[in-house]
Amino acid sequence: MTLQIGVIGTGAIGQDHIRRITQALSGARVVAVNDINPQQARDTVTRYQLDAIVHTDAHALVADPAVQALLVTSWGPTHEEFVLAAIAKGKPVFCEKPLAVTAEGCRRIVDAEIAHGKRLVQVGFMRPYDAGYRALKDVISSGKIGAPLMLHCAHRNPSVGDSYTTPMAITDTLIHELDVLRWLLDDDYVSAQVVFPRKSSHASSHLADPQIVLLETTRGVRIDVEIFVNCQYGYDIQCSVVGESGVANLPEPASVLLRSEARLGTTILTDWKQRFIDAYDVELQGFINGIRDGALTGPSAWDGYAAAVAADACVKAQETREVEAISMGARPAFYPR
Amino acid sequence: MTLQIGVIGTGAIGQDHIRRITQALSGARVVAVNDINPQQARDTVTRYQLDAIVHTDAHALVADPAVQALLVTSWGPTHEEFVLAAIAKGKPVFCEKPLAVTAEGCRRIVDAEIAHGKRLVQVGFMRPYDAGYRALKDVISSGKIGAPLMLHCAHRNPSVGDSYTTPMAITDTLIHELDVLRWLLDDDYVSAQVVFPRKSSHASSHLADPQIVLLETTRGVRIDVEIFVNCQYGYDIQCSVVGESGVANLPEPASVLLRSEARLGTTILTDWKQRFIDAYDVELQGFINGIRDGALTGPSAWDGYAAAVAADACVKAQETREVEAISMGARPAFYPR
Amino acid sequence: MTLQIGVIGTGAIGQDHIRRITQALSGARVVAVNDINPQQARDTVTRYQLDAIVHTDAHALVADPAVQALLVTSWGPTHEEFVLAAIAKGKPVFCEKPLAVTAEGCRRIVDAEIAHGKRLVQVGFMRPYDAGYRALKDVISSGKIGAPLMLHCAHRNPSVGDSYTTPMAITDTLIHELDVLRWLLDDDYVSAQVVFPRKSSHASSHLADPQIVLLETTRGVRIDVEIFVNCQYGYDIQCSVVGESGVANLPEPASVLLRSEARLGTTILTDWKQRFIDAYDVELQGFINGIRDGALTGPSAWDGYAAAVAADACVKAQETREVEAISMGARPAFYPR
Amino acid sequence: MTLQIGVIGTGAIGQDHIRRITQALSGARVVAVNDINPQQARDTVTRYQLDAIVHTDAHALVADPAVQALLVTSWGPTHEEFVLAAIAKGKPVFCEKPLAVTAEGCRRIVDAEIAHGKRLVQVGFMRPYDAGYRALKDVISSGKIGAPLMLHCAHRNPSVGDSYTTPMAITDTLIHELDVLRWLLDDDYVSAQVVFPRKSSHASSHLADPQIVLLETTRGVRIDVEIFVNCQYGYDIQCSVVGESGVANLPEPASVLLRSEARLGTTILTDWKQRFIDAYDVELQGFINGIRDGALTGPSAWDGYAAAVAADACVKAQETREVEAISMGARPAFYPR
Repeated sequence: MTLQIGVIGTGAIGQDHIRRITQALSGARVVAVNDINPQQARDTVTRYQLDAIVHTDAHALVADPAVQALLVTSWGPTHEEFVLAAIAKGKPVFCEKPLAVTAEGCRRIVDAEIAHGKRLVQVGFMRPYDAGYRALKDVISSGKIGAPLMLHCAHRNPSVGDSYTTPMAITDTLIHELDVLRWLLDDDYVSAQVVFPRKSSHASSHLADPQIVLLETTRGVRIDVEIFVNCQYGYDIQCSVVGESGVANLPEPASVLLRSEARLGTTILTDWKQRFIDAYDVELQGFINGIRDGALTGPSAWDGYAAAVAADACVKAQETREVEAISMGARPAFYPR
Repeated sequence: MTLQIGVIGTGAIGQDHIRRITQALSGARVVAVNDINPQQARDTVTRYQLDAIVHTDAHALVADPAVQALLVTSWGPTHEEFVLAAIAKGKPVFCEKPLAVTAEGCRRIVDAEIAHGKRLVQVGFMRPYDAGYRALKDVISSGKIGAPLMLHCAHRNPSVGDSYTTPMAITDTLIHELDVLRWLLDDDYVSAQVVFPRKSSHASSHLADPQIVLLETTRGVRIDVEIFVNCQYGYDIQCSVVGESGVANLPEPASVLLRSEARLGTTILTDWKQRFIDAYDVELQGFINGIRDGALTGPSAWDGYAAAVAADACVKAQETREVEAISMGARPAFYPR
Repeated sequence: MTLQIGVIGTGAIGQDHIRRITQALSGARVVAVNDINPQQARDTVTRYQLDAIVHTDAHALVADPAVQALLVTSWGPTHEEFVLAAIAKGKPVFCEKPLAVTAEGCRRIVDAEIAHGKRLVQVGFMRPYDAGYRALKDVISSGKIGAPLMLHCAHRNPSVGDSYTTPMAITDTLIHELDVLRWLLDDDYVSAQVVFPRKSSHASSHLADPQIVLLETTRGVRIDVEIFVNCQYGYDIQCSVVGESGVANLPEPASVLLRSEARLGTTILTDWKQRFIDAYDVELQGFINGIRDGALTGPSAWDGYAAAVAADACVKAQETREVEAISMGARPAFYPR
Repeated sequence: MTLQIGVIGTGAIGQDHIRRITQALSGARVVAVNDINPQQARDTVTRYQLDAIVHTDAHALVADPAVQALLVTSWGPTHEEFVLAAIAKGKPVFCEKPLAVTAEGCRRIVDAEIAHGKRLVQVGFMRPYDAGYRALKDVISSGKIGAPLMLHCAHRNPSVGDSYTTPMAITDTLIHELDVLRWLLDDDYVSAQVVFPRKSSHASSHLADPQIVLLETTRGVRIDVEIFVNCQYGYDIQCSVVGESGVANLPEPASVLLRSEARLGTTILTDWKQRFIDAYDVELQGFINGIRDGALTGPSAWDGYAAAVAADACVKAQETREVEAISMGARPAFYPR
């Protein structure tokens, strides 16, 4: 009854998922690994004391009869190829972000999965598995704040390296909001606009930071997301849902309330890896349990596609400074709400 | 040494200021009153046991030698006339909002005051006198959050009557933010845009509610103000200043922290009159002290004019749904920063 | 209609009250001053531009026909004498803490006031005039938390000088809680116990700091008050009322919520003078209005006596480390609840 | 490498731990179960689809060579017998609270474990595994608040049944604080006193509720714990550590901040099972990992004994209303700090 997993890509995130499966989660074990650097794959087997075969060819790993499900944590541009290979073999596959590097690539995966006839793909968007976002969604569903009308959000990082570019504010940062807010509202985006506030002196010369993205949904909900990746003070994720009769905020992470040096307050995380650390466990356990129960329920290939389409429009809106339409076509019945 | 004040307009706000001068503040007394309804003026004298003369003609009150300073709390469309009359007599005048019902009217007052050669006018914008906004400005000035880049604000009322119209969201509601945010940032607006979220089912049929106003300042600070006058849950004023290295929020009003019925929290005010109640005292005491000290420091005729120009642009932006420029001409040297 | 006040004692607190009457409050003015140091009295007249006579003899000031009410802000050991003199002349008197330096002295004032037949004395306990304590009392009265069963309190100062002694933790510090908690609960104390936690290394060698005082009331409410006068981090007053169905906390002072340097929080005051600064205004205005309206309502001579009796028991409990009874005799009908 | 566990007692908590091992944790599986009611044991095997043998004799289960470690979740009075049996076989054993129903019984387990020569026993105190208490201990260790001087704690339940008695406030409720506060402070208790506030009208006729327990530690730290098991409003655990230079509070559970119906606040849990739900997982995973790594680190038999001795003194203090000494003898070197 233990799910046998093959892992493609043993970099940082691959190893983290392997540790998770091996030491923290229930019902699965890693039986095969692959990496573009075979030595790294072998080192990973040693480090985590895995009883696993090392495949030097990723496609051989996908085809390995011992492998019942795939974890794709390789370099982004290779994701589409390996996910399509998994689908071709009819094997469930958990693919880290991005599902593919273009919306077209995502769409090919959607089409392949529909052609296969059953959901096989889960995309590694972890925020819908975060206890805070789940509690926020529960409040919305409870009717306590009425129908949502507006979302005010912020995604702040202490700082980024010089290689971080203006479009990455969308593709690497906002992408999480693009996913989780669709899920939170059970709605889709119809337009995007980007405005550029006064630039922070802490941002590198080529980077527009901060930015504000304005989104509109099919139901008319207006969303503003502040993206500020050199905010200095911490890693801070804010989401405030304004409904017809109340306002609900994403919980702050639990923290010791401290009185010291004339200040009363809590600690703000500075390392993004700590912020959603529990969600990664729940996400991957959800994938394992979904396979066991015969139905994946996490972020789908369609969700990966939708995020990619929205991100493309936002990047375009960065350039044009106009309101850009977001159009992803009709939602296939294969992916019910 | 007691300042002798004449009051034009003894409606609700006029009476409230009379009570304030008589029972709470120091250094002034009401010596003359006028109202379009003379009986109401007489009743006010009786109610507050004033040693004051009732003038049936407002201009006679302005001219009365016993009157050293004016309080204009009459109907809005009459403000310009009485303020100009006070300037003509060289008497200091505190005028409730609006200074005049058009930007042109405000400009005429500005020009008259400049021609007179000394500040005589204070406009009844009270938020710069609120301890919370002052503390927020102190934090900005302290450099703790670095240069301001963005402001996220909300102005929420529980509900409004059917007579409240879409432009009133600007002229009656946003007008307070238009004043106080200029003061907070020591900056001016250059453009405005209005977006309309999904309409609340609690809003009357002719009213667009909520609305979001996007402002830009000369220094590039981006401001979003949510106006939501049927939010049901309370009267709630939010202002979050995002600086280069930190974020500062307008304080919530002090309130008992209550644990009861499975909830942990404080009370939100529902009556707007309670929210800035202390600020009215400070504001009017500031006017009295300013006259005593020979220099008014509160919101000036120029501030009244600037708010009027910005409001006009926002109302236009409601109609056009485009980004509208805000242009008020050069700041006269008469009104130093 | 302006109340004419004579002030005995123009030290720091005397001057502060003079400033208050002259510049902030309504309905009174200072017409006479006295100080053991006549030059200081004269300087005070100059500093605040008072139209006041300087009496070199305090009793002459009390007797001065121009003086309608007294403010006693002289050295503590002289309070009893001057308050009794005011009562003898039938003049209302506001006396700073302590009403007298012994419970017997307080009792003599009580007896004199009763003999006079009308309330003349208000003691300078300001916390019942603090908006936070008033809001807390309102919550109790509202029934939202049911009948009070326990109070958990703390009185913390950043640090004290070497002259601060162990009994002063009661007579200078706890005295405020001894007054305000009686008022809050509308109840009296029946016993006191003091326990001594591990001593802070920041306390001077002769001082027991912190201390915890355990009080019991006639209705069985149990109160614990932590007194910690070298807590380093700020001036912090806590009061949590545990009722049968809920818990209510004294509001924290309103403060900007700041996100900076990986901390989310507010500022804690470090200067005790700031903590209840508004309450001093309300307190003294209450005295002025009470005289105008013919009935003093603030802390009475009986309240001053009750605090003194309780303080004596607490000091004894510091020494014996036993539970000490607090007995103040029956409340005279002259002082209704 | 999978740890094979035998479970004695398949009641509610036994089943919950079985579910945990089977569905949530990593590295262990249930291979044998026993219950005084054999049918319940068999039903449990079916319910959780265990590949496990049902022993009708608990001692046979302990002796079963397939069983590598024991979980004792049977009726409290049987714990001592089964834990001693496990020690006799040299098998690690996780025993739910209480370790034994008397301090003497706990001491016999301590002696048996010492005689065995290696730690085998972990007691089911879960709070030291709670992320909040761990964060609080980290703050203490960081030196940010200086040496702890006082702890102010509360343990509140919405309500209890009529079978809940006054001593159970110690043995069922305070027992958690008795364990976790020793761990938090790395200290031992030397005395206890209990005071009884005004009784809540919601408490049953025979129950003293609330109660306040005052503890003193070897280092002089003073602890007050309010126990209030009919507080109506929620399940609320408070712990405030006052150090020489700051105060740190146990984090409130993360919760959506809601603005609705004139209130601003979060939700308080009402079900105690939710409050430390994550800690149970961490606790039992810690037991499994400890066996794997050759060293148990969780609450020891000595901790179980210490809690029992302290509880006995508190129960005695309830009766005598005096300060009762807590004496547990010297800590054996076998149990290093």
